[in-house]
Amino acid sequence: MIAVREIIEFLDSEVIQVFGNTEKVYVKHLKPAESVDKDTLDWINPARIGKQEIVENSKAKVILVDKDVKYSSNIQSQNKTLILVNNPKLCLVKIGHKFFVENLTPGIHQTATIHSLAKLGENVHVGANCSIGNCTIGNHVIIYPNVVINDKVKIGDHVTIKAGAVLGFDGFGYERDGSNNLIKFPQLGNLIIHDHVDIGSNTCIDRGSLSDTVIGFNTKINNLCHIAHNVVIGKNVVITAHVAISGSTIIGDNVWISPNVSLRGHQKIGQGATIGMGAVVTKDIPSGETWLGNPAIRFEE
Amino acid sequence: MIAVREIIEFLDSEVIQVFGNTEKVYVKHLKPAESVDKDTLDWINPARIGKQEIVENSKAKVILVDKDVKYSSNIQSQNKTLILVNNPKLCLVKIGHKFFVENLTPGIHQTATIHSLAKLGENVHVGANCSIGNCTIGNHVIIYPNVVINDKVKIGDHVTIKAGAVLGFDGFGYERDGSNNLIKFPQLGNLIIHDHVDIGSNTCIDRGSLSDTVIGFNTKINNLCHIAHNVVIGKNVVITAHVAISGSTIIGDNVWISPNVSLRGHQKIGQGATIGMGAVVTKDIPSGETWLGNPAIRFEE
Amino acid sequence: MIAVREIIEFLDSEVIQVFGNTEKVYVKHLKPAESVDKDTLDWINPARIGKQEIVENSKAKVILVDKDVKYSSNIQSQNKTLILVNNPKLCLVKIGHKFFVENLTPGIHQTATIHSLAKLGENVHVGANCSIGNCTIGNHVIIYPNVVINDKVKIGDHVTIKAGAVLGFDGFGYERDGSNNLIKFPQLGNLIIHDHVDIGSNTCIDRGSLSDTVIGFNTKINNLCHIAHNVVIGKNVVITAHVAISGSTIIGDNVWISPNVSLRGHQKIGQGATIGMGAVVTKDIPSGETWLGNPAIRFEE
Repeated sequence: MIAVREIIEFLDSEVIQVFGNTEKVYVKHLKPAESVDKDTLDWINPARIGKQEIVENSKAKVILVDKDVKYSSNIQSQNKTLILVNNPKLCLVKIGHKFFVENLTPGIHQTATIHSLAKLGENVHVGANCSIGNCTIGNHVIIYPNVVINDKVKIGDHVTIKAGAVLGFDGFGYERDGSNNLIKFPQLGNLIIHDHVDIGSNTCIDRGSLSDTVIGFNTKINNLCHIAHNVVIGKNVVITAHVAISGSTIIGDNVWISPNVSLRGHQKIGQGATIGMGAVVTKDIPSGETWLGNPAIRFEE
Repeated sequence: MIAVREIIEFLDSEVIQVFGNTEKVYVKHLKPAESVDKDTLDWINPARIGKQEIVENSKAKVILVDKDVKYSSNIQSQNKTLILVNNPKLCLVKIGHKFFVENLTPGIHQTATIHSLAKLGENVHVGANCSIGNCTIGNHVIIYPNVVINDKVKIGDHVTIKAGAVLGFDGFGYERDGSNNLIKFPQLGNLIIHDHVDIGSNTCIDRGSLSDTVIGFNTKINNLCHIAHNVVIGKNVVITAHVAISGSTIIGDNVWISPNVSLRGHQKIGQGATIGMGAVVTKDIPSGETWLGNPAIRFEE
Repeated sequence: MIAVREIIEFLDSEVIQVFGNTEKVYVKHLKPAESVDKDTLDWINPARIGKQEIVENSKAKVILVDKDVKYSSNIQSQNKTLILVNNPKLCLVKIGHKFFVENLTPGIHQTATIHSLAKLGENVHVGANCSIGNCTIGNHVIIYPNVVINDKVKIGDHVTIKAGAVLGFDGFGYERDGSNNLIKFPQLGNLIIHDHVDIGSNTCIDRGSLSDTVIGFNTKINNLCHIAHNVVIGKNVVITAHVAISGSTIIGDNVWISPNVSLRGHQKIGQGATIGMGAVVTKDIPSGETWLGNPAIRFEE
């Protein structure tokens, strides 16, 4: 049970006003709309229609609301506590992390294999059956079980790597020899992952061939993505599940890539572009544009 | 060598009639049509054309047939044994599991890491290098090597989880904060897997955010699929390889999803729907319909 | 530092002529075009325009060139060494492997689990947390960490298997029983991988059901691919990332399959065919043709 007083103190300047009783009022959990009960800390998404009614009908005793919701006599008589904030959803996110998410303890699982020369920062968690080469890992990094990281990979601070991800191995580059046989191009570059990057489960990111593969600050990558050699990704990029990014492609800041998108190699995706689900991108995309389809073309609203 | 007598006894009431000798007749293996030899237990798919001829030309001495095949004088003179059943393919499946498939021994591999509070049922097999959190696992569950299961996951009976699958970790949900930075939405829900579900290699299924992710009874999922947070899947659903199902999508019973399909979040797929290979589904699909293409549209036969 | 003399000796008959000084001249590394410095062994791709100018402007002291580049007085005065060869890119590849790539030491990591009856050839490297069943593995095979190989798989010589790959487990085959429930078809076939095959990270290749799954000589497979039961792939086939090949499909020699392609089951892809990125292939493809789109159709140039 968490005291509502404690939550209000934690939210601090986010709180505009509190209506109703806050003494000896407690919440127990967060729940989706359809499962809200008397112990739930409820919240009303500012985008919803009929917010006043939702609050009046909620089974919860404590509700995060925005300024559109009034502390009506009906609500008052129900003895509900309203916490008025600018952004209820964002406050819920913060409360969730503070009071409800269980954090992993830093430490290296005994079954993990770590290269003797690897440099690990402070507060790093390494899960079971990980294999970590001679690489550099920053502070506050969480590595879930069964992750494999090759030598020379450089990982910043506050990076999260989910289970089964494979980072920094040779890219897929072949040349034909005189007899038309495929022989592998040497893969000598590194993989550099900046701060606050999240990497999804079973995602694979290859090292560069001669230059480096780079994942920019605060970029978030979901499960089962493939990011090939020499790809350079900017900041705050969202890469959803099952995305395949071919070699040497350059992606600007704040790009959004929907599930199951394929990007040809040596493309440039301008900053702020949006790529729709299943798009097969064979051309450069200018900044700010939205592209869809197979082959992908510009979407005109 | 397996005695044909033993097979007939095992099939029991499935057998309508047996033609030819069954004493001291043995089979050794199952083979594809092109490799059938004298030691094969052959079978004739009822859907094939020219079944009588196939049986007469088969090198096998023992053949599972349906009622369209006659015990002709030619077959008689070849000294073949015909086992007449309603469904030769289904009988073959049953014989395969009974006499030819090697079952894994229950037990936990010494290199697996199991949370001390995890609850495992009877006859559970856990392969090498698995990492299993504080979760609940039913009876007769097979977990192949290098599977990772998070805390709180609930797994029913007779579930099979293939190698490298990752189950029950945080979904991919982010909010923008006041400075337009991505911050993660707390992921607090569970993953519930019902009885007789099969999960493919390197498939990832995320836990719910506030509600639960649910995989229904007897649903079968192939390799390299992504199933996001809050997805609810019904019974007897077939999800083939490389399928990406985005968050909060609801899938009815008996749906068939072909390879490399993408489903947008918050969709509803009605029961018995069929989704064709590579379809990019951006809308709800009514029950029983077939949808194809990018973007997917209804297929009119 | 590597002596240019040594490189020239290694290239041997590939070298047509050497211009400039080779005594006490050294190189230190390979670099991408934009990062070439005085210690780089530079090379000029024969396909580039303005090769003479590129050589004259290169910061490198030693450059691999083809016959279009002249040993001009300008280059002479810069004191550069030109190594004239037929194929500078291929020479670079060979030099890269000889002088710059660090090879893994043969041996079995102590955390790997190997079946007591598995047959491993000479110079095999098995990484951490691998699980290898009762299978046969040739000589000079590299298996990166967290790979899972089932019993009965046969692997040739000079095969490389990247991290997290899953090889030789049951395919996804189900029959309906009398009550319309899905029951699994027995999976009894093998997986056979021929010499010089490369397999990408987190790729899954299933065993055959009654026949075998076969990967032909020198075929290269990238990350996160799915290859289903009974698929037979020829020689020198290139399968890029995120490709899904359904059951019993047959692929001829020298086929090129671009990223995120889906192939329906029981197809035939003729030799030398090219399948474009994101293609959804529902028909047989004749030899030498190029197919694109969803559904894929023949591309007429």
